[in-house]
Amino acid sequence: MFRVTVRDHIMIAHSFQGEVFGPAQRLHGATYVVDATFAGEELDGDGIVVDIGRATEELHAVLADLNYRNLDDEPELAGRNTSTEVLARLVADRLAERARAGRLGPGGTRLHGIEVTLRESHVAWASYERRL
Amino acid sequence: MFRVTVRDHIMIAHSFQGEVFGPAQRLHGATYVVDATFAGEELDGDGIVVDIGRATEELHAVLADLNYRNLDDEPELAGRNTSTEVLARLVADRLAERARAGRLGPGGTRLHGIEVTLRESHVAWASYERRL
Amino acid sequence: MFRVTVRDHIMIAHSFQGEVFGPAQRLHGATYVVDATFAGEELDGDGIVVDIGRATEELHAVLADLNYRNLDDEPELAGRNTSTEVLARLVADRLAERARAGRLGPGGTRLHGIEVTLRESHVAWASYERRL
Amino acid sequence: MFRVTVRDHIMIAHSFQGEVFGPAQRLHGATYVVDATFAGEELDGDGIVVDIGRATEELHAVLADLNYRNLDDEPELAGRNTSTEVLARLVADRLAERARAGRLGPGGTRLHGIEVTLRESHVAWASYERRL
Amino acid sequence: MFRVTVRDHIMIAHSFQGEVFGPAQRLHGATYVVDATFAGEELDGDGIVVDIGRATEELHAVLADLNYRNLDDEPELAGRNTSTEVLARLVADRLAERARAGRLGPGGTRLHGIEVTLRESHVAWASYERRL
Amino acid sequence: MFRVTVRDHIMIAHSFQGEVFGPAQRLHGATYVVDATFAGEELDGDGIVVDIGRATEELHAVLADLNYRNLDDEPELAGRNTSTEVLARLVADRLAERARAGRLGPGGTRLHGIEVTLRESHVAWASYERRL
Repeated sequence: MFRVTVRDHIMIAHSFQGEVFGPAQRLHGATYVVDATFAGEELDGDGIVVDIGRATEELHAVLADLNYRNLDDEPELAGRNTSTEVLARLVADRLAERARAGRLGPGGTRLHGIEVTLRESHVAWASYERRL
Repeated sequence: MFRVTVRDHIMIAHSFQGEVFGPAQRLHGATYVVDATFAGEELDGDGIVVDIGRATEELHAVLADLNYRNLDDEPELAGRNTSTEVLARLVADRLAERARAGRLGPGGTRLHGIEVTLRESHVAWASYERRL
Repeated sequence: MFRVTVRDHIMIAHSFQGEVFGPAQRLHGATYVVDATFAGEELDGDGIVVDIGRATEELHAVLADLNYRNLDDEPELAGRNTSTEVLARLVADRLAERARAGRLGPGGTRLHGIEVTLRESHVAWASYERRL
Repeated sequence: MFRVTVRDHIMIAHSFQGEVFGPAQRLHGATYVVDATFAGEELDGDGIVVDIGRATEELHAVLADLNYRNLDDEPELAGRNTSTEVLARLVADRLAERARAGRLGPGGTRLHGIEVTLRESHVAWASYERRL
Repeated sequence: MFRVTVRDHIMIAHSFQGEVFGPAQRLHGATYVVDATFAGEELDGDGIVVDIGRATEELHAVLADLNYRNLDDEPELAGRNTSTEVLARLVADRLAERARAGRLGPGGTRLHGIEVTLRESHVAWASYERRL
Repeated sequence: MFRVTVRDHIMIAHSFQGEVFGPAQRLHGATYVVDATFAGEELDGDGIVVDIGRATEELHAVLADLNYRNLDDEPELAGRNTSTEVLARLVADRLAERARAGRLGPGGTRLHGIEVTLRESHVAWASYERRL
């Protein structure tokens, strides 16, 4: 299996509902350093799984919809806990849509899976891995 | 699959038995930067796999029993090579016990697996992955 | 010159005023990975510049007043841009007060300077260095 | 499953053929920080999957054949795109040959798999994972 | 003193002349992860030393003239050893010109100094620090 | 000012004397990731401050005398607290001797200073900077 990963980041505000979150129930924020991994069994004629340039652009486009925002105010996310896990799945699902739509190039439609990792600090991160 | 990882570290002394270890047969030591990864298929009602705060506390508790010690003198470990692999399994197994005992919260009992990675330097690390 | 550094982090929300900030004028947030460096010319009788354990505790205490907060709502900070530079100075000044008050131990009063670095992402950070 | 990883690096020149590569069609270069991961189900009598010292030596030997070279001029690689994915597979395959030949010690023949990751920058990397 | 740092990277080919360079006399290449640090004594009215967005753009512009190139073929660099030190100075000097020309905004003309660090691998880097 | 840094590591055991060290009074150990920085005002005829290859060899030689040892048993260090600061100074002083003895090449004798940083974990490190 081949895997290609590109990295970008977002800076957002949000709050959590639920006693388990303790002080994170208050409005606070995070920088998420986001790694998107694209997995495929075969290389294409150019010798790649997916073009790193395109992968970088698509990840950046997906993150642009979240960046520099208070997620509590985003209609799509309002009322949900935007935990690191939830955001990892959201980014992975949106990248999957773009891959299927051909935005990652023809190789993108042959990908087997996507994994997205959000690093919220130097001591904690979460990821979501899905098939394509 | 969702995965959540938290990081901590220990500083221990030990020695190895066996020619393969060369100079590491002498009493020496290591800082192990320890990453514990908890994997689950589902998010709970709060939108998380496992509470990062609790995961951090439980990892810290497991490591406290090893930290600032000469592992050669620990009755439980005496006579065994406490290689990076062996210690990774030890930490993973102890975290698994705590997960099953509910110490990671109710979500902890629904976890599918645990992986523990010990980084012994900037150029070498080892991990152990197991089911729950 | 000796220097000792300890690392911790905070997760905060804030917004900026001023066109230069572009989309960061919106309410957003950041994880700041914070490095506090203590510099001194001499080692004490124990062979250290400052106790790493105490330095870690004092940095954590200073950061606790900022952590998991919307800085726009903090009376002390309201109306100011809490840029990475401003926050680096704030943390450095508060650590300096604690050093002078003896909270870092007797060695703390012999320190020559403090530098605080806030890493806001994998591609941007800022620091403030001051004398003691 | 146990996994042991060692890290080394190479510094090479190359160029790519294909419009998808844009400016990387020009002769340029890369530092690849290379992580080689060896996976096995069982520990040997010494308590290890593979000797980290030997793994480091074998990775270094495999990389020495590529290091400080223009890959476009290497007979074995001429006419192929030496993408990060292609090089990851090349290194993994050569390590697999060495493992089967006993160069990693007796434990090397019991390995289940090898994964090689090449980090081409702080924001992009690729890997190849194979069975043994 | 305040310092703001932004990070980018380039991927280049080159060769060195001089026996001291050993195998690096051959045509090879490097990824340089480039950190540009801007130092100033005062914050401006917005509370910053230099706008991180502009600093990122100017660093990117300076690096674009070097990126994806064989430096041996660049007229400006031909016949010189483009060592890590030489490239660090080149990038610092070009950033200094841009700062003086107001490309970093009005705050850029009040900067005291610039330091540029090029990381050529996980185990070696070089920097050049200059006044403005 | 130019600066060149190379990285290596050691794995040692030791214990500390003094209540300030708490549990670190017990025999324990550390991996120190060691960065040695060589500073000079001028580049030599080859365009470098110091040969990275030689710097790497000399750092490795200095560390070899400490590596895989219990520092409490080293005659030279017995009875002293081998704190991170003390070890940073020890390594810097030994590198300075080698630089003056010409072991870093002719450029080594023109160096202005040396700084050595020992990283004992992902959250703590110490350094010693001296003139040459």
